[in-house]
Amino acid sequence: MKLAYDGTHFSGFQVQPNKRTVQGEIEKALNTMSKGSFVRIKGAGRTDAGVHARGQVIHFDYPKAIPADGMLRALNALSSEDIVFYTSDIVDDRFHSQYLAKGKTYQYRVDNHKLEDPFTRLYAHHHPFKMDLERTKQALNYLEGTHDFTSFASAQSDKEDKTRTIYEASVMIDERTEEWVFTFRGNGFLYNMIRIIVGTVLQVADGRRPVEDIPKILKAKDRTVAGPTVAPKGLCMMEVYYD
Amino acid sequence: MKLAYDGTHFSGFQVQPNKRTVQGEIEKALNTMSKGSFVRIKGAGRTDAGVHARGQVIHFDYPKAIPADGMLRALNALSSEDIVFYTSDIVDDRFHSQYLAKGKTYQYRVDNHKLEDPFTRLYAHHHPFKMDLERTKQALNYLEGTHDFTSFASAQSDKEDKTRTIYEASVMIDERTEEWVFTFRGNGFLYNMIRIIVGTVLQVADGRRPVEDIPKILKAKDRTVAGPTVAPKGLCMMEVYYD
Repeated sequence: MKLAYDGTHFSGFQVQPNKRTVQGEIEKALNTMSKGSFVRIKGAGRTDAGVHARGQVIHFDYPKAIPADGMLRALNALSSEDIVFYTSDIVDDRFHSQYLAKGKTYQYRVDNHKLEDPFTRLYAHHHPFKMDLERTKQALNYLEGTHDFTSFASAQSDKEDKTRTIYEASVMIDERTEEWVFTFRGNGFLYNMIRIIVGTVLQVADGRRPVEDIPKILKAKDRTVAGPTVAPKGLCMMEVYYD
Repeated sequence: MKLAYDGTHFSGFQVQPNKRTVQGEIEKALNTMSKGSFVRIKGAGRTDAGVHARGQVIHFDYPKAIPADGMLRALNALSSEDIVFYTSDIVDDRFHSQYLAKGKTYQYRVDNHKLEDPFTRLYAHHHPFKMDLERTKQALNYLEGTHDFTSFASAQSDKEDKTRTIYEASVMIDERTEEWVFTFRGNGFLYNMIRIIVGTVLQVADGRRPVEDIPKILKAKDRTVAGPTVAPKGLCMMEVYYD
């Protein structure tokens, strides 16, 4: 199933005791439907607290045969209004939303107004400093391609191989809201990787760092030389790709 | 002062006992600044609970001389993040934000997706039925000009003269969110007028009423012949005009 959620009022995707999580909400709805026989869901990615999704993908084994569109209607009826299910498909037993994902697209939104826009405050990170679009694009350019992203991964990342390929790292300005919208498309992202990349690129954008720092940071393979991890609320999982 | 607010967590503009209101929040901040000498504010329009503003205007008498930009900084620092003050001016004693307003612009946003978009759910009314853009424009056309809007005013409206002039009643589709964005610019609006107009125009848009009902409803001068009052969350006060 493909779904969207507003992450504002969730303590992230992954189930945790006594917290409202996306996984917890969906499993609660499924358990209501299945009359108690426990259903565990798996997501393509575990978004952090406050992170949003427009194209999260989940899979699960359901104990009874239900048509795909019946499952869609039931879950939309049973879940709260900050989660919406868009599509539902009955898939092969070998399908796995996380392990078979070939790539993902994320967006990160930045509110560059001097005063934070009250209407985007839950969906964008506020960075009220003068930014240069050309420098920002140059910084993003250095990140495209295959690199060891150790410097841009949380020290808590437990993945041994930190090499990833970024197919697209771009920025455009939203005409209506004037937000800076960063798009990252890649074969996989390390823990906090996009938030650390944006935190570092903003330092280049506003002139606190030279553009040439980006290749140096990549080469250093050291988290401490990159910029800060920016707020989760600007991040949104847009799409997951499968063969 | 010109300000914006996200109306979601306010019980409207006007102060009410034991409720969180826009006026109440601002007066609380002003009273903190003035160390207890009470300051009453006046707004250009009293938005209802859940209604938003991007261009509300307020005025007040402040007991001490403070530079306009100092007032702006102080109120932004003291108020919660769902209110933002954009401009501040020291005006003539005769200025009045409500009585001297020559006109206003409002927007009303409609989410026409089959399933409600979780990211616009607090700022748009969900209307999941097939709508015809041409019919919608024709209906809006009938409303432009000077009319007695009795049929489109809440029965609770206490204004005796219900004649108003609408300079612009238009609709466009937001490219990014695909919302239908209605714009109304006029010399004044009666209580609930825009929400009743939109409730009626949506009945034309989705085919439940013929376009020719609009002039008939105007002529009837009877609230019961118009459509329902749609949700406050879709409405936003965009601009107030003065000479």
